[in-house]
Amino acid sequence: MKRGHQQGDTHHYKADRELLVSLKADTDLIESVTQIARDAGIQAGILTAIGALKSARLGYYDQKSNEYQEIVVDSPHEMASCLGNISLKNGQPFAHVHVVLADEAGNTKAGHLLEGVVFVAEVHLRRLLGPRLERQHDQRTGLSLWQK
Amino acid sequence: MKRGHQQGDTHHYKADRELLVSLKADTDLIESVTQIARDAGIQAGILTAIGALKSARLGYYDQKSNEYQEIVVDSPHEMASCLGNISLKNGQPFAHVHVVLADEAGNTKAGHLLEGVVFVAEVHLRRLLGPRLERQHDQRTGLSLWQK
Amino acid sequence: MKRGHQQGDTHHYKADRELLVSLKADTDLIESVTQIARDAGIQAGILTAIGALKSARLGYYDQKSNEYQEIVVDSPHEMASCLGNISLKNGQPFAHVHVVLADEAGNTKAGHLLEGVVFVAEVHLRRLLGPRLERQHDQRTGLSLWQK
Repeated sequence: MKRGHQQGDTHHYKADRELLVSLKADTDLIESVTQIARDAGIQAGILTAIGALKSARLGYYDQKSNEYQEIVVDSPHEMASCLGNISLKNGQPFAHVHVVLADEAGNTKAGHLLEGVVFVAEVHLRRLLGPRLERQHDQRTGLSLWQK
Repeated sequence: MKRGHQQGDTHHYKADRELLVSLKADTDLIESVTQIARDAGIQAGILTAIGALKSARLGYYDQKSNEYQEIVVDSPHEMASCLGNISLKNGQPFAHVHVVLADEAGNTKAGHLLEGVVFVAEVHLRRLLGPRLERQHDQRTGLSLWQK
Repeated sequence: MKRGHQQGDTHHYKADRELLVSLKADTDLIESVTQIARDAGIQAGILTAIGALKSARLGYYDQKSNEYQEIVVDSPHEMASCLGNISLKNGQPFAHVHVVLADEAGNTKAGHLLEGVVFVAEVHLRRLLGPRLERQHDQRTGLSLWQK
C-alpha cells in the first residue's frame, strides 16, 4: 500500500524474517550487506550494526553542489553506530548506510558510509514484506530517492 | 501487560505494521514524524532515520538545573544517526528523537532533536500494539517520562 | 537455521515480543538491560535506547594489541545513540552495546559501552526466536564472537 502524504509518501510493510550475521574480516561492509540482502531475497529492509572497522571512506553530500565529498578514515575505529536501509536501485537490492566511528580517545567521524573494511561487524538485518521500493533519480537533490 | 522491575517498569508489545517514508524537503522532522504517527494511529512506536538536514536545533538537558540548553546547528549536516520513540503526551502521539549530525569533515554534533529542517530523511517507523504508554511529569528529572 | 556465507554465517530469526522500558536512575545500563533480558527469557535480541547518562566508561578495542582501552566520561551527557544486541556468553544472556554521547555543546564521545550510569534511558528491547547464538573466544581478534 502506498499513500500520499503531506510529509512524504508512506509505504506500508509487514515484518518478516530477521538475520543476525557476524561479517567476515576484511570484507567491505556495504558489499557484504548487499550480498546478504540479495541471497535472502530482501528487496525492502532495515539494518543496524555495531563493531569495529579497519578503515573507511565516508561521504558528506554537499547540498549546494549536489555532489559527495569524501572523508578518508585510514585508521581503526569502533563502529559506534550503523543504521541503514535496503531498497531497489536499478532493480537490485541497494544498501544505504550511515555510520558513526570513534577513535581511541572516543572522538568521532560520521557520515554516509561509502566503504568500510570490517574488523568485526555484528549486523541485524530485517526483511520487510510490502510494496516495491525503488530508488530513482531526484531532480531537486541529485540523489537516488524512493520514488513518489 | 506492565510489570514492575528493579530496572524499571517493563511494557510488553507486539509488532504491527511498519512504515518507510521519505520526508518532504523543508518540513521539520519532529513535526512530520508526529503527523505520520497520528495518521497511522501509532500510540506506541519506534523509529530510525538516516539522511541530511539543512539546519537543526539540538537540546542538551542540564541534569542539575533540569532545563534544556539549545545548540543551534545553522548549516547543512548529514544525519548520521536518528533514533526515536513514539508514546502519548497529553493523550496525543509524541516523538522523542535523538540525532547525530556530521559536517563536511565528518565532525559531529549530537543531542536531543528539538527541530530539524529536512533536506532528505528516510524514516523507518514501527507501530507497536500493547498497553497505553503515557508521558507524565517526573519530579526527579523535570522531564516527561513514561508513567510507572 | 544457520547458513554458511561468504560474508559470514547467517542466523535466521522470527520476531517475538518487544519491550519498552524506562530504566531506573543510577542503575548501570548494561547490568539493567542484561537483567531485563534474563527476566524476559531473551537469548537472542536487539536493543536501541535514547536518554542521558550521568557518567560512563567507554571502550576502544585496539586492533593490534587485542585489548580494550578505557575512556572515562565523568560528566553528564545526552545518550544520542545506543545500539546493542543480546546473545549468550557462557550460557547466559549477554549485552553488547555501543553508544554515542553528547555534551552541552553537542560534542561527542563514542564507543563500546563498558558502564553507563543512567539519568534517564528509554530502552526498546526485542526478543528474537531462532537458533542459539553463543559467543566464543575468537583467536584472530581476541574477542568473544558469535560462533561459526
